[in-house]
Amino acid sequence: MYSFASDNMSEVHPQIMDALLRCNSGPAAAYGADDWTARLNAVYSELFERETFVFPTPTGTAANGLAIAACAPPHGAVFCHALSHIVTAECGAPEFYSGGARLVLLPSEASKVETGALTAELGNYGPDHIHQLKPAVVSITQATERGRVYTLSEIAALGEIARSHAMRLHMDGARFTNALVHLGATPAEMTWKSGVDILSFGTTKNGTMMSEAVIVFDKATAADIRYRHKRAGLLQSKMRYFSAQLIAYLEGDLWRKSALQANLNAQRLAKALSAAEGVSLADPVEANEVFVHLPPPVKAALAAHDIHFRKWADTKDTLFRIVASYADDPKQIAQVERAIMALDVTQVGGIETNRNC
Amino acid sequence: MYSFASDNMSEVHPQIMDALLRCNSGPAAAYGADDWTARLNAVYSELFERETFVFPTPTGTAANGLAIAACAPPHGAVFCHALSHIVTAECGAPEFYSGGARLVLLPSEASKVETGALTAELGNYGPDHIHQLKPAVVSITQATERGRVYTLSEIAALGEIARSHAMRLHMDGARFTNALVHLGATPAEMTWKSGVDILSFGTTKNGTMMSEAVIVFDKATAADIRYRHKRAGLLQSKMRYFSAQLIAYLEGDLWRKSALQANLNAQRLAKALSAAEGVSLADPVEANEVFVHLPPPVKAALAAHDIHFRKWADTKDTLFRIVASYADDPKQIAQVERAIMALDVTQVGGIETNRNC
Amino acid sequence: MYSFASDNMSEVHPQIMDALLRCNSGPAAAYGADDWTARLNAVYSELFERETFVFPTPTGTAANGLAIAACAPPHGAVFCHALSHIVTAECGAPEFYSGGARLVLLPSEASKVETGALTAELGNYGPDHIHQLKPAVVSITQATERGRVYTLSEIAALGEIARSHAMRLHMDGARFTNALVHLGATPAEMTWKSGVDILSFGTTKNGTMMSEAVIVFDKATAADIRYRHKRAGLLQSKMRYFSAQLIAYLEGDLWRKSALQANLNAQRLAKALSAAEGVSLADPVEANEVFVHLPPPVKAALAAHDIHFRKWADTKDTLFRIVASYADDPKQIAQVERAIMALDVTQVGGIETNRNC
Amino acid sequence: MYSFASDNMSEVHPQIMDALLRCNSGPAAAYGADDWTARLNAVYSELFERETFVFPTPTGTAANGLAIAACAPPHGAVFCHALSHIVTAECGAPEFYSGGARLVLLPSEASKVETGALTAELGNYGPDHIHQLKPAVVSITQATERGRVYTLSEIAALGEIARSHAMRLHMDGARFTNALVHLGATPAEMTWKSGVDILSFGTTKNGTMMSEAVIVFDKATAADIRYRHKRAGLLQSKMRYFSAQLIAYLEGDLWRKSALQANLNAQRLAKALSAAEGVSLADPVEANEVFVHLPPPVKAALAAHDIHFRKWADTKDTLFRIVASYADDPKQIAQVERAIMALDVTQVGGIETNRNC
Repeated sequence: MYSFASDNMSEVHPQIMDALLRCNSGPAAAYGADDWTARLNAVYSELFERETFVFPTPTGTAANGLAIAACAPPHGAVFCHALSHIVTAECGAPEFYSGGARLVLLPSEASKVETGALTAELGNYGPDHIHQLKPAVVSITQATERGRVYTLSEIAALGEIARSHAMRLHMDGARFTNALVHLGATPAEMTWKSGVDILSFGTTKNGTMMSEAVIVFDKATAADIRYRHKRAGLLQSKMRYFSAQLIAYLEGDLWRKSALQANLNAQRLAKALSAAEGVSLADPVEANEVFVHLPPPVKAALAAHDIHFRKWADTKDTLFRIVASYADDPKQIAQVERAIMALDVTQVGGIETNRNC
Repeated sequence: MYSFASDNMSEVHPQIMDALLRCNSGPAAAYGADDWTARLNAVYSELFERETFVFPTPTGTAANGLAIAACAPPHGAVFCHALSHIVTAECGAPEFYSGGARLVLLPSEASKVETGALTAELGNYGPDHIHQLKPAVVSITQATERGRVYTLSEIAALGEIARSHAMRLHMDGARFTNALVHLGATPAEMTWKSGVDILSFGTTKNGTMMSEAVIVFDKATAADIRYRHKRAGLLQSKMRYFSAQLIAYLEGDLWRKSALQANLNAQRLAKALSAAEGVSLADPVEANEVFVHLPPPVKAALAAHDIHFRKWADTKDTLFRIVASYADDPKQIAQVERAIMALDVTQVGGIETNRNC
Repeated sequence: MYSFASDNMSEVHPQIMDALLRCNSGPAAAYGADDWTARLNAVYSELFERETFVFPTPTGTAANGLAIAACAPPHGAVFCHALSHIVTAECGAPEFYSGGARLVLLPSEASKVETGALTAELGNYGPDHIHQLKPAVVSITQATERGRVYTLSEIAALGEIARSHAMRLHMDGARFTNALVHLGATPAEMTWKSGVDILSFGTTKNGTMMSEAVIVFDKATAADIRYRHKRAGLLQSKMRYFSAQLIAYLEGDLWRKSALQANLNAQRLAKALSAAEGVSLADPVEANEVFVHLPPPVKAALAAHDIHFRKWADTKDTLFRIVASYADDPKQIAQVERAIMALDVTQVGGIETNRNC
Repeated sequence: MYSFASDNMSEVHPQIMDALLRCNSGPAAAYGADDWTARLNAVYSELFERETFVFPTPTGTAANGLAIAACAPPHGAVFCHALSHIVTAECGAPEFYSGGARLVLLPSEASKVETGALTAELGNYGPDHIHQLKPAVVSITQATERGRVYTLSEIAALGEIARSHAMRLHMDGARFTNALVHLGATPAEMTWKSGVDILSFGTTKNGTMMSEAVIVFDKATAADIRYRHKRAGLLQSKMRYFSAQLIAYLEGDLWRKSALQANLNAQRLAKALSAAEGVSLADPVEANEVFVHLPPPVKAALAAHDIHFRKWADTKDTLFRIVASYADDPKQIAQVERAIMALDVTQVGGIETNRNC
């Protein structure tokens, strides 16, 4: 079976597993007073080229909730795209963590928050209109839920609007590294240098076991979020096993290599599919996801080859999402490419639907 | 160095580590649709001798918050002991998870919730007195924060009061197994058969990496808590690594063996200390913790032997907490015993204070 | 000046003021233990033809927040129209009161929640999809934010969908009576007989000083909401002054007479405007609001006659809202009619914009 | 019948009623855009001798919840006396408004927060101890729940501790004026000049219908609390009727005269009772409340004279609370004095118990 349902189905990368084994020798201080966690801020400060505060979380949902709560009062409005993971797949985590901030869904042609739509919506808000919530956060997903990557200037433009309205810019970086290597940018460039105030830094989809993190660039927010982090039950007693993953993830450029591999796999799949009869890509393939319209006979034929992926939920019947992973076996990718090129579209099979990713 | 500061400093048990390695082979369905999680409810239903629903969480703080929120409305009162971990060491997680329920601290001679104090306090509440919150939960810690173990009849008596006031009985079982083996009871006897409605089941202190769980015994609560679990960011994408730990924890009776070992270590340390000049146990040693009054020269002498543990925060200078672990090296325990027996009380050293455990 | 900006600008009806004066004689028991409040449930039970529980609130925003919180868990989804007052003009009260429930905005051609849109959206939710919130409430406004009135069968159809998804149907009745007299229905028919589970009963816009109420039709919700009502600071110490208004409001059919007058005034204004050159009604006039497209010269001419009302915020320049009140002086209505008929469209004036009503 | 159960049983003062009638003439702008509200901040700025922002609320519970939420994050600790109204009689309003801040009850000999107890408790908190909540607010009640009045230097001492720990000092001034006239201080002296950051200003017990207010002394808090005020449903549509009361309350020194009268009545009752056989005052009488130990025959005899008041709930049988009001008829006070002096202690009668005041 070839499954491209989601990158979070992948096993843990062997280097991460090794890191866990290495830190499993004898006792270590609890609640982050261990040697691994002691290095965490320094390692990430170097990575981001400025003082950086790292708050490990077990899931991206927790990271997003925590990050938004640190920036939005309960009466805050969080402007985001209707397709955002925080909207469609986190069961209201931002509302829970913030105590009732509201997600305001912006209209958009594609999967990115657009400056025009944001500015237009902001016209309904302001200090003289307290019947509406207080603008607090702009939240974007990098790469987006449709596999697109915001350019540095697109991020900077949103950061500028956020700043001019006393809002913060949050980046949900569940696939941060896939976007980063696509842009060829530095972590600093793709975040605070472009106006990002707070980042949900994802690593689980790209090879760790369960280590996401909220990355904070200012001391005041860090001082506040420490309490929220503990209060939500996200401060691990055996924190070393989280910190060790976050450190090992960067060692030897593991993170970039993995993301490059995943993106390459997506490109190969996209290229093969594009050449098939009646198939068309729905979005440019920039990270590790392929969104593709497949005629029923094509999808049936792929299923017949035991090639699986998901229907994209919010759309009409022919749109599918294929997610490539760093862990895909290159031989299997080649087999899939061959299968696509030799598609026999006469057999029908079932295809799962799910949009939680 | 011999550290008895906390059992959550211990490394992960090798059998747990093996389980993690074993489930790290190839992709698996995400968000709990994997094979390990599929077995979880069945395995724990067998353990508890009735239909049981398991919600893995990364920390005990998250488990307690989640469990209490599932039982208390935002306007609910949660009756508990003033020493409770939920009071002293979770930064308000129950308030956060529940949306503002209140912890009502009951007076007590020792570390257990007493029926008399509970009944007396309940006199201030009721449907005709809505100026107070609504009684919702009684929460007890098994073993208690002072290492005591509620007997089955003590639990049952609290369960009876809870039921008669339409409240739920929550058990914070951070050291569930240490208490269980002390009582020689079954999991069913120590929980639902004694009136416990919901359980925070701890495994991390007793050998896993980060797997706690809320154990639910009724379908309606399980149907509700699923949403709360996801919403708080506690539903792991790579859930298999949590479920595999919770399953391996029970295999070959690992959990009981580990708890028996920890309790035995505590007994040995307590016995050795009791024999020392001027030393007195503050509480009976029933689980894996020793609370002991140490004259300054004694504590200094122990520090001189590089034997470390914590001052107990809320009390006068001479009270200390010693926590034994399954992972303590028996040779080291023997060395510590010998050191205690040959105490030289002439040298002074620093001792850490911390009550978060 | 003739102001039709909002019906909540009206003074208190003399009969209501008399009621306040009458109950201002000597001491009375506090917190609702007074004689007026003692009659409240009975009076409204008779009105609604079944056991009814009344929770007075000082504002409609508080009533809506309270009612929704009583029906939606924090992880609940509240389906409503994008124009709803709870969406556009209450600063997130439903989120605050419920602890983070989410308002899900349904697409609609007009200002009513449509069964088709509701059913379609519900397809994204369900017990097997906990990545989304739990469907909890359908909330409708009667009369709607565009002055339309749901028919009994429209309400019943929504009630049926709500019930079949284990949701509750909430009615924001800020202009309850204006809708009621339009339909010629009984309060029972327009609420619980059509599937409404909980009602925000408005009286302030129709003549009281500040008495809204949550009307509850079942004992379990009433038992819960009592705590929420007190906890939010809505239980008045001198409750008699609220209850007396709610009772006087019904006496001698004051409420119906006032609503009929307001609706009639709206009809007269609508009719006069419809006849004017270039003017067109945007919505049928069913309650006491007129939504009308006015060419700039017309609106300027009206302003020149000192006739004021508001631009309707979310729409293009020519749409205006005119709200009639029970308190409008019939002579003034006649003057305005004459002014409209004799419109001189040569002079320009400013017009306020505001959608909080 | 002579009832001294609570000052909130009193009718509305005729001057307040007149003010309501005076502002009931024709339409006025809604949501605080009216002429009365326009003057509110100016009137109170003059009263408090600095820029002051006034947020009317319908109850003291709402005022306290709002004030605390404006000063405490959800993870904040609010230090207060165990007898505080916010603890015993508001059904968790501070937790609700703040999203889960915790009330930390300080031990005390009497009804005042003591600097020693506060400082001792603060030793358990701090930036290096995030397992506990973040110190955020000290809340005191002036006059206290036992009728005592904090001196200016007592307030200042607490204000100093608050400031040195980056906390805010909140005053619950449900009986603000009764305390003020006892001290002979200015409003400025009793609040911001003594370190009070935010005030719940009570007027209802002292003669209005339902007008309390949060008084804010700094712009940043005012900018934040506006949203919270609206969001909680406390921004009245017909705000003029609240603002008019708050203005009339000060006119002609009505507020002081009423408080002086109430305090004087309490003094007279206290004096008469003190002289009775076996009766002893439990607390010095400083405001308008008398706490008194009454032997059963005495209380029975008073009941026989139809003189009613409440048993004080948290204490043993003989403690009673007598609350005097500005509205007590002086002739009745004289009759009660005579009745006390001529006590016939042979007849028994029922006495209500209630501590919500």
